[in-house]
Amino acid sequence: MPNHVEPLENLIDQFARFPGVGRKGATRMAYEVMAMSNEQAMELAKAIEHAKTGLHRCRLCQDYTEGELCKICLSSKRDRSCICVVESPRDIQSIERTHEYNGLYHVLHGLISPMDGIGADQLCVKELLARLNSDIVKEVIMATSPTVEGEATAMYLAKLIKPLGIKTTRLAYGLPVGSSLEYADETTIYRAMQGRGEL
Amino acid sequence: MPNHVEPLENLIDQFARFPGVGRKGATRMAYEVMAMSNEQAMELAKAIEHAKTGLHRCRLCQDYTEGELCKICLSSKRDRSCICVVESPRDIQSIERTHEYNGLYHVLHGLISPMDGIGADQLCVKELLARLNSDIVKEVIMATSPTVEGEATAMYLAKLIKPLGIKTTRLAYGLPVGSSLEYADETTIYRAMQGRGEL
Repeated sequence: MPNHVEPLENLIDQFARFPGVGRKGATRMAYEVMAMSNEQAMELAKAIEHAKTGLHRCRLCQDYTEGELCKICLSSKRDRSCICVVESPRDIQSIERTHEYNGLYHVLHGLISPMDGIGADQLCVKELLARLNSDIVKEVIMATSPTVEGEATAMYLAKLIKPLGIKTTRLAYGLPVGSSLEYADETTIYRAMQGRGEL
Repeated sequence: MPNHVEPLENLIDQFARFPGVGRKGATRMAYEVMAMSNEQAMELAKAIEHAKTGLHRCRLCQDYTEGELCKICLSSKRDRSCICVVESPRDIQSIERTHEYNGLYHVLHGLISPMDGIGADQLCVKELLARLNSDIVKEVIMATSPTVEGEATAMYLAKLIKPLGIKTTRLAYGLPVGSSLEYADETTIYRAMQGRGEL
């Protein structure tokens, strides 16, 4: 029921485009914008414009950056023999937070999903393969999500990369730290059992 | 940990200002903006600007409108003898959806909340009192939320309005339709008992 005045209805439509934001949430956000000061609202609008115009993909890893190359690709402290393949730039932040990985990254910007009509050609796969043409890279770590699409994408890439003589690995499956065995699903427990290590 | 590039970090900060949107949700939204086409992102930014510049408060009821007066205040089909007082413009939509109310509205744009330092002078109370100076208004319905702040605001306004000889009413308390008695809190049950009606 579009009972709202047009500019408000339009703003609700715009917010409702975000995945995970329903009609109710979008309405709430739109009214929040209306309750903001003019300056605050303009700052928000400008931040959107600025992020879109000021950022683009790193020539190497495809993460968002202001320069031609991102900080990680530019860093001399990084191990350039290892590339960790992720679905989205967000995942880089998650892995960086562990302070455990010192290699480079490669963002696919999606996963192969035939159901949604997304094939390998719509992802940054050729950019990844181009990076493997040198002798520097010794290992590619698949860090896609443990979902059907994440699995399929990792398998697909492994098939392309292995013939190049590069080690291809996958993040381990198992029980999430701090979780209870009681709530773990069978597949996770099965995988944790298979991947069990000596104490 | 502001690991993101600056324009992205700024956008996340902006989204995180929305109540109910945490840091994680804001990050998700910011990356969503990055994944949008340039046109889509600009549409979103423009919608925010347009809603803020194209809308202002109705001279009478203080709801958002493009003109001087909103549609409801302009309508000749509305009963001008009754004013329903609400906290925010959103609440008007909720009440309109019932198709049960045919009077006018008045938006306070907040509730009295001494804890947050919000007094009656920061709300649209004087605009409400100005509307009551004519002889047309016979009833003012308090439709603020059944919270401490909503209660306090309704009581405060009732004290101001009653001396003007205008009937002041309050939305009924009781069990929400479709709910289970099992999950209702004692206060609600107590109120439902007090307000019980004959069958």
